[in-house]
Amino acid sequence: MSLKIKNPISVVGQLRPPTRLLFGPGPSNAHPRVHSAMALPQVGHLDPSFIKIIEDTKELMRYTWQTSQEFTIPISGTGSAAWEAVLANLIYPGDVFLCCVNGYFGERQCDMASRYKAQVERIDVEWGNVFTYEEIEAAVKKYRPRLLWICYAETSTGARQPLEGIGDLCEKYDCLFVLDTVTAIGGIPLNLDELKVNASYAGGQKCLACPPGISLLMLDEKALNKASVWDSKGEKVPNWYLDISMIRKYIIQKGSAPRVYHHTAPISMIYALREALTIIAEEGLEESWKRHQLTAEYFWELLEEAGLEMLIPNKNIRLHSLHTVKVPEGINTNQAITYIRENFNIEIGNGLGSLAGKVFRVGLMGYNSRKDSALLIVSALKEALKQQNWKGN
Amino acid sequence: MSLKIKNPISVVGQLRPPTRLLFGPGPSNAHPRVHSAMALPQVGHLDPSFIKIIEDTKELMRYTWQTSQEFTIPISGTGSAAWEAVLANLIYPGDVFLCCVNGYFGERQCDMASRYKAQVERIDVEWGNVFTYEEIEAAVKKYRPRLLWICYAETSTGARQPLEGIGDLCEKYDCLFVLDTVTAIGGIPLNLDELKVNASYAGGQKCLACPPGISLLMLDEKALNKASVWDSKGEKVPNWYLDISMIRKYIIQKGSAPRVYHHTAPISMIYALREALTIIAEEGLEESWKRHQLTAEYFWELLEEAGLEMLIPNKNIRLHSLHTVKVPEGINTNQAITYIRENFNIEIGNGLGSLAGKVFRVGLMGYNSRKDSALLIVSALKEALKQQNWKGN
Repeated sequence: MSLKIKNPISVVGQLRPPTRLLFGPGPSNAHPRVHSAMALPQVGHLDPSFIKIIEDTKELMRYTWQTSQEFTIPISGTGSAAWEAVLANLIYPGDVFLCCVNGYFGERQCDMASRYKAQVERIDVEWGNVFTYEEIEAAVKKYRPRLLWICYAETSTGARQPLEGIGDLCEKYDCLFVLDTVTAIGGIPLNLDELKVNASYAGGQKCLACPPGISLLMLDEKALNKASVWDSKGEKVPNWYLDISMIRKYIIQKGSAPRVYHHTAPISMIYALREALTIIAEEGLEESWKRHQLTAEYFWELLEEAGLEMLIPNKNIRLHSLHTVKVPEGINTNQAITYIRENFNIEIGNGLGSLAGKVFRVGLMGYNSRKDSALLIVSALKEALKQQNWKGN
Repeated sequence: MSLKIKNPISVVGQLRPPTRLLFGPGPSNAHPRVHSAMALPQVGHLDPSFIKIIEDTKELMRYTWQTSQEFTIPISGTGSAAWEAVLANLIYPGDVFLCCVNGYFGERQCDMASRYKAQVERIDVEWGNVFTYEEIEAAVKKYRPRLLWICYAETSTGARQPLEGIGDLCEKYDCLFVLDTVTAIGGIPLNLDELKVNASYAGGQKCLACPPGISLLMLDEKALNKASVWDSKGEKVPNWYLDISMIRKYIIQKGSAPRVYHHTAPISMIYALREALTIIAEEGLEESWKRHQLTAEYFWELLEEAGLEMLIPNKNIRLHSLHTVKVPEGINTNQAITYIRENFNIEIGNGLGSLAGKVFRVGLMGYNSRKDSALLIVSALKEALKQQNWKGN
């Protein structure tokens, strides 16, 4: 017998990725220690030693998110999987779901929630802008949602949504407060308990300096109660992989009851997340926030000197992790991005959706949030723009 | 301001996993080169160099699965995620879904399919046994399913299901043939094209010697047509993360159309999968199958010499990757497993479901499929059983 599909080894050759500086919207470069952690010997996913590793990881997650909630766990997929886990478990068909849309990820949220048969209502402000408390309050009064979703750090626009009062508002109107913290965690001040957030998710590949492939999920007691509606109706969550009633028995050890096999956790990615969170704890969470702030301010200063403009004029609602820089008139955005990649091995991002071609998206996140990175990006941007005869400073 | 959730760094300490030999049902030990691949510098997930890496990975997947199908792609989650992707996209509510249940994973399949509102029908044989062609044919005639699911390599029992004729049968009755190849791929003879499989999925953490966290999915044209029903009805797949109409635009580059952002692919895990598949291609697929067979036969021989028995008497339906060894009478299974772990740093598995306590599950998969592994496990088993006054050979 000979195989019909021929051995491609001579065609594909060895894996030799280029060495890039990842200053786009994510992933950011993982900390070298995180890469080393992935090379550590794997234990089995039901090994007693793995329970300790998971417990340590959860403890570190709670610190980094500032939450005391027990159900703070890693999810075996990218940030989008943890996001979907929130929806699959918390939406019961027909629930009114309020999406606050001020960027690409708000649009995505409407799509995702509709797949779980929520009655999706939305409010909109222009991309790059944020909602006022009053706008949110009016929408809650109007729609009386069971769930409210908002994005703290809109990766598509670089805007930071003020969150004061939203937790209390949701509590008053018996609505679950779902907060997207993907590009926030570790990079900008964030305190889930103080904000009275009921559900949140995040990815590792932004300010945590962990490679993509593992994500973070927090559900508080109220959210868990909401999820238990399925069980109380004798129904099942319409998603097996992300069913938290099963994941809970697998990942959270209760007393002497043995863990119940669900799927096979991604051991090496959990090592990576644990190491990434350890590095933040070693630095100190507030110090990490401060570092992101100082790097951001230095970056903005250099941009201004160079004659470049940020999309968001108001510094108070700019992220410190992800920056949207206006593309000067007459500049071909993709050409500039390609120049920077090909000449300097640096990745920066184009705008998404309605901002495509209009902004450069620059991430200064995690291990990459440093003054030397800021200086290098602005210098590279200037070189790229010069190629297109830009007359900046 | 001081943070309420205190820094746990002094409590959690450094990540120091023990060094285990993973001879359980999975994960198996990753090849050292695979760990090294995960330490390679990450590129961005939209980087042109990543397209080449994905294309190479898909080419290597096609070889390892022996399929020419274009839609042969990595899925950003563990094997269960790729499995769920098959169901989320291919089941339309009300479809008759025939599950052939001869172990734990067949039971799970019934649960999973019901969440996507299939009309689940099942046939059963005793765990450790396999179905005859006639049994399957009779069920197809009786239920007229739109989808038939069967497991080639039941990880809970160690049984290898004969597959001859099932592809033709499904074709004749206009039914999609869904094959679970998780503990098969790379380890036992498998040729998706020849078997006329319409959809298959697998994990990396068994015979491919890749850590868990990345999985493999193949859908042929018939399966893709079935999935397009959603779109033709103006509806959406009830799972955003695993919606193949979106993943397709993200992961498969067509002509000069740019890739469309969906989620962020797990870069380092894709490196790992690519390297694991490269190692198999270097060895040669048939040589890998042969190695698993020789190791298995040697293992069985040693077991017999030791006076131990396999659950499955018929060697022709035993897997070469995963072995179920009967627990001798009077032996405490967990105690033996713990003895082996604590004394030799070796993991072997207990039975699942109705086989819990009745069998040891031993994986000789991927990098671990070697004569020295077989010898070590049997020796360790004998030592553990001696502790419980077992009178073997």
